[in-house]
Amino acid sequence: MSATTEFSRLASSREVTERITSFFERRIAGAARYGGAFEQLWRLAEDASSGGKLVRPLLLLDVYDALAPERGGAESAGRETALDVAVAVELLHFSFLLHDDVIDQDTVRRGRPNLVGALLEQARESATAPRSHTRRLHWARTGAILMGDLLLSACHQEIARAEVSRRQRVDLLDLLERTVSESVAGELTDVGLSHGLVPARLATVIGMTTHKTATCTFELPLRAGAILAGADAGTQDVLGAVGRHLGLGFQLQDDLLSTFGDPARHGKERYSDLREGKQTALIATARTTSSWPSIEPRLGRDGLTDQDAAWLAAELEACGARAAVEGLVREELAAAVELVDDPATRLAPSLRAVLRDLTRTLQGRCA
Amino acid sequence: MSATTEFSRLASSREVTERITSFFERRIAGAARYGGAFEQLWRLAEDASSGGKLVRPLLLLDVYDALAPERGGAESAGRETALDVAVAVELLHFSFLLHDDVIDQDTVRRGRPNLVGALLEQARESATAPRSHTRRLHWARTGAILMGDLLLSACHQEIARAEVSRRQRVDLLDLLERTVSESVAGELTDVGLSHGLVPARLATVIGMTTHKTATCTFELPLRAGAILAGADAGTQDVLGAVGRHLGLGFQLQDDLLSTFGDPARHGKERYSDLREGKQTALIATARTTSSWPSIEPRLGRDGLTDQDAAWLAAELEACGARAAVEGLVREELAAAVELVDDPATRLAPSLRAVLRDLTRTLQGRCA
Repeated sequence: MSATTEFSRLASSREVTERITSFFERRIAGAARYGGAFEQLWRLAEDASSGGKLVRPLLLLDVYDALAPERGGAESAGRETALDVAVAVELLHFSFLLHDDVIDQDTVRRGRPNLVGALLEQARESATAPRSHTRRLHWARTGAILMGDLLLSACHQEIARAEVSRRQRVDLLDLLERTVSESVAGELTDVGLSHGLVPARLATVIGMTTHKTATCTFELPLRAGAILAGADAGTQDVLGAVGRHLGLGFQLQDDLLSTFGDPARHGKERYSDLREGKQTALIATARTTSSWPSIEPRLGRDGLTDQDAAWLAAELEACGARAAVEGLVREELAAAVELVDDPATRLAPSLRAVLRDLTRTLQGRCA
Repeated sequence: MSATTEFSRLASSREVTERITSFFERRIAGAARYGGAFEQLWRLAEDASSGGKLVRPLLLLDVYDALAPERGGAESAGRETALDVAVAVELLHFSFLLHDDVIDQDTVRRGRPNLVGALLEQARESATAPRSHTRRLHWARTGAILMGDLLLSACHQEIARAEVSRRQRVDLLDLLERTVSESVAGELTDVGLSHGLVPARLATVIGMTTHKTATCTFELPLRAGAILAGADAGTQDVLGAVGRHLGLGFQLQDDLLSTFGDPARHGKERYSDLREGKQTALIATARTTSSWPSIEPRLGRDGLTDQDAAWLAAELEACGARAAVEGLVREELAAAVELVDDPATRLAPSLRAVLRDLTRTLQGRCA
């Protein structure tokens, strides 16, 4: 990334952060009249949502800035709207994280208590809180379900109110509708896979991964940036396809990192996927090999020792599953590059530069 | 209700039902490509949502029909939009029901399995379903959380796409935003009360009841009907106030019916509020009386016998709590009538007639 790009990304990041802060400030101020518990829920939600890398809003703004006619004019009305929609995209992400955490029964995210964890801590410190852990957990999960609803609603509100043309509004609403449907379908399939209710074929796992991650993390911001910049339908569709390839590649990398990466760098608990028995592409591939009978009984065991987990990781490598998924990642990133470089896609040179930059970042990713 | 009103309500009810059916049909058709589990979730959601009384959409249409200039012309574009928004209001209600059921850990609603219950039954019949009940319940609750998200999103989509003026869209979005916030705040307070995290003062319980029920069930449809018919802000505000009074009265009646009513008529399990230890206005009032020490230890006991529950009900009557809450109901309904009849509110005579009709229905309510 060039120094200029780096600088403009920092500026965008600050603008998005300011807007997210001001969103929460308005909501906290409005919440007070509905009682202390509701106000406190908003405060904890702000805290739990802070510190992210803002991947999605920054992608949206990168595309918008590359394509918008008044590019560079940071003060323009169009860019203000792009910032509002960038915030909406991040709120959608927060909302999904909250409901995923409830569904996955997690209380920690990236080494910090998530909203459920924060509500639990708060209840532990309250004199009037129920003494039973089950009841405190119920309170904490209730808070996360309800805050997820509020943020999902807020995302739709921001997009419905965006100052855009009728055509753009319909395009954004269609995009949002599909994103919500696919993300939910992906999450449902993920849980179905983990319970054995959905057969764990590789194609199913790849579809689930695309829907659960690629749509919301890459396709949504890339397409939204193009819609807001007034790009034609062809450009939007190319960006959608590029987003799906990059998003799938990104999540498959995540799966690899969880098992073979350095926890100090990727921030998740080492071997957590193996302990949870997550149905990733790595596992779906291993299932088709002759090593499966020795892998299966250890997978998803709660008390899996680090030694056993390391053995499993070595086995996943020896059976060729690691190499196969690494191959998939290379294919997806290459497919994205091919689309970006194809003269037939007629992407603006400025947009090509942004997408090449993004692909390079993913290619060198180890965290 | 006159025969003509009765007839036009039946017609509206049919129109709303048709539109809800077609909403689900479109979603089921679109879901197939994301796998059988997702399609099946939509089918079960349609089934779980059917059979309701459509209170909210019919209220909206009553107000719209009373106020709209082209009243009577059922085919008009304005009325088509009103029908779309009426459906959106019902989808919001479905969404809240699903998340409430997850939070309340209910599997039955009005004597039928709710969506969680239906998913549980389905999992029990599936050959590949997990054998542990806990895991099946996790699957079922996951489905209900995710379907609640889809319906919440769909409600916002319908309203954002409504063919109305810019002013009306902003008014509808403001109304929706406040409704979502208040409903969530009400639900959070309700759960906080049940865990002793929120002190159970009568004023808090009344505020919770207003936010949890009155806003979504009465204020939202009454105000939305007025916005769609192009009524002035004054009329909208009067309808909002009338809606809050009627909604609070309605929910307090519900609380009374749950303890003193006929289960064959109100459709809920007899004494379920007493068994759950729900913090209703009835209980908040009893808490201030000298009978409280004998009431408290029995309240919220899971295995409460019908005999003990009947004793509790008699005690709630003897201590004056029943009469006090009945007084509150009368006051709220009277406050609504007063606003409706007040010449200063300048309501259109056709709207007055609708609201008087509604109040009379509530006054005679025993189911």
